[in-house]
Amino acid sequence: MITKPTLLVDKVQARKNIRMMLAKANASKVDFRPHFKTHFSADIGKWYKAEGINKITVSSIDMAVYFANHGWNDITIAFPVNILEVDVLNDLARRITLNLVVVSLETVQFLNQNIKHGVNIWLKIDTGYNRTGIPSNQVEYIQQIIDEIQVPLNFKGILAHFGHSYKTKASSEVLKIYNEGISKLTHLKNEMQLEDCLISIGDTPSCSLINEFKDVNEIRPGNFVFYDLMQEQIGSCSLDQIAVCMACPVVAIHSERNEIVVHGGAVHFSKDRILNDDGKEIFGKVVPLTSKGWDQALIDHVYLKSVSQEHGIISATEEYLAQTKVGDLLGILPIHSCLTANLMKDYLTLDGKWLKSMNSIN
Amino acid sequence: MITKPTLLVDKVQARKNIRMMLAKANASKVDFRPHFKTHFSADIGKWYKAEGINKITVSSIDMAVYFANHGWNDITIAFPVNILEVDVLNDLARRITLNLVVVSLETVQFLNQNIKHGVNIWLKIDTGYNRTGIPSNQVEYIQQIIDEIQVPLNFKGILAHFGHSYKTKASSEVLKIYNEGISKLTHLKNEMQLEDCLISIGDTPSCSLINEFKDVNEIRPGNFVFYDLMQEQIGSCSLDQIAVCMACPVVAIHSERNEIVVHGGAVHFSKDRILNDDGKEIFGKVVPLTSKGWDQALIDHVYLKSVSQEHGIISATEEYLAQTKVGDLLGILPIHSCLTANLMKDYLTLDGKWLKSMNSIN
Repeated sequence: MITKPTLLVDKVQARKNIRMMLAKANASKVDFRPHFKTHFSADIGKWYKAEGINKITVSSIDMAVYFANHGWNDITIAFPVNILEVDVLNDLARRITLNLVVVSLETVQFLNQNIKHGVNIWLKIDTGYNRTGIPSNQVEYIQQIIDEIQVPLNFKGILAHFGHSYKTKASSEVLKIYNEGISKLTHLKNEMQLEDCLISIGDTPSCSLINEFKDVNEIRPGNFVFYDLMQEQIGSCSLDQIAVCMACPVVAIHSERNEIVVHGGAVHFSKDRILNDDGKEIFGKVVPLTSKGWDQALIDHVYLKSVSQEHGIISATEEYLAQTKVGDLLGILPIHSCLTANLMKDYLTLDGKWLKSMNSIN
Repeated sequence: MITKPTLLVDKVQARKNIRMMLAKANASKVDFRPHFKTHFSADIGKWYKAEGINKITVSSIDMAVYFANHGWNDITIAFPVNILEVDVLNDLARRITLNLVVVSLETVQFLNQNIKHGVNIWLKIDTGYNRTGIPSNQVEYIQQIIDEIQVPLNFKGILAHFGHSYKTKASSEVLKIYNEGISKLTHLKNEMQLEDCLISIGDTPSCSLINEFKDVNEIRPGNFVFYDLMQEQIGSCSLDQIAVCMACPVVAIHSERNEIVVHGGAVHFSKDRILNDDGKEIFGKVVPLTSKGWDQALIDHVYLKSVSQEHGIISATEEYLAQTKVGDLLGILPIHSCLTANLMKDYLTLDGKWLKSMNSIN
């Protein structure tokens, strides 16, 4: 019996999402290297392994160590190398096929001096997101970095994250960002006349909306395994593809303002939010919990309107309020499944099994 | 040596903050029941115990269990009772002095039937924050709830959280909210002609800015132990009272847009933010790290402008950029220390000791 805020995972749907993305990758003959920063979980990692997937992406060195300790032996850390952790990187490089991402000449020079085992090097290229990466038009600087790479470093290719696709609200915008990004990457590759240069890309919106990956060697989406309301708003998924749902106990009802208080706040959901069509901030949307999990049909006009540390405030209709009482459990689809999973730490499957993550306390 | 995102705690300053608030409470002859939802840490709890503090507030039943297991035996769970967890509450009630917060008649009726050991009951009153609690003008309903309370439940008093004080930007607004709140609570108490009704209040802005607590029996601030930039903006503290600081490794520098990328994102800081005077969103501000900790003087115009899951983007001046390189550690004061501590899990003191919290993995 669920008694407190709990992250439910629909294993059947999550595995469908994995197979769907794998099938896409296979159809386009590109490598599939899913990002594990969405679930952080060795238990969930097994669902990928069952499909024959053996290469993964992670977002931190700690996460690489965790998954290496759980039997994953080909890992890309898709984050600019933190040179302060070189000892941990050397230990990983000794044990597994380690792929590092660099964004500067200085880092390559440092790695040349300090890395003792073979590692693959990917250059992070910025095609317009402007978070990090070398701008794709800095051909000379990029060439200079590649020329600097020495054994045991092995230049593998160029890697990009079209993260600006997350800020879109329509599939057409995602496609535009994707096409521009691919065009910049292939242009760069051609200009440098590099034959042995792979191209790796990987945001969930693009990978969900593109059916055929041309001029690409590898995709690295992560969020698609669970999806969430942000992805649904972008158009990356339908509601019934969302594979995680929070179950939150009702602790108070304020009929004077049509609000329900649940245990489920910023320490459970994070503070990520989307804007609804009417411009209102939304931190989650309510769905009915059922004996089999949850029903994907949203309850109209019933949503998580705000979160503080432990409190979640549900804005409800009078009708919904009338049928809700203290001690009920509400189903709430999260805005951003990656951050919710990071906070919740453990998952409960619909058949009642607990799954652990790297954040699990015991 | 720090090699990855690390939450530094200045024990000397945090203990000063504890003593300052305790002295205030003592001067006003009110009970001091600090909220432990800011630090979540049994190790840090010892700093309070060293001052003779033996009553605490927590925000969840899990947190109550954690601190009860670490020797705290008078705990208020300042969150509306989650009746689904009644078994855990009974176990706690058997072991410690347990104070519960109720906001509805139904919950009291449920507790009358299901609680087997003595517990103190506080009625949560809403004085204008409108998050939860019974509106202070619903005198009849409040009286009805109090009349319903039966042994082993023991009515203790009325409790409020002036949470709207966090949304202010000036001390005068905080004082106005405080005075209105106290006035409503004392009015309610007088109207009900209850002699044995204590009044408990407890937001950090009020408790920091009010020098003398009249008509109040207990204060429950939490954030004051660390403070943060949100409190500094409200006027609750000065920069040198902030007792936590993140140390984040520089992983990339983008001089073309005066930006520095650090390892330190939403999974470290949370996404809480403040608006600067110029309307810009700020997720943290940069201070110099020193051999002794950090220097409280902000580095002008150098701040955390955005966070994604693991990345933090620092907006910097050209001058600051010129003196920063990949592999440096930056000090970043957090916006909201409670959420940052929840995510970071462990603390490093300035003399190099690791402190654990209830979220610590090992």
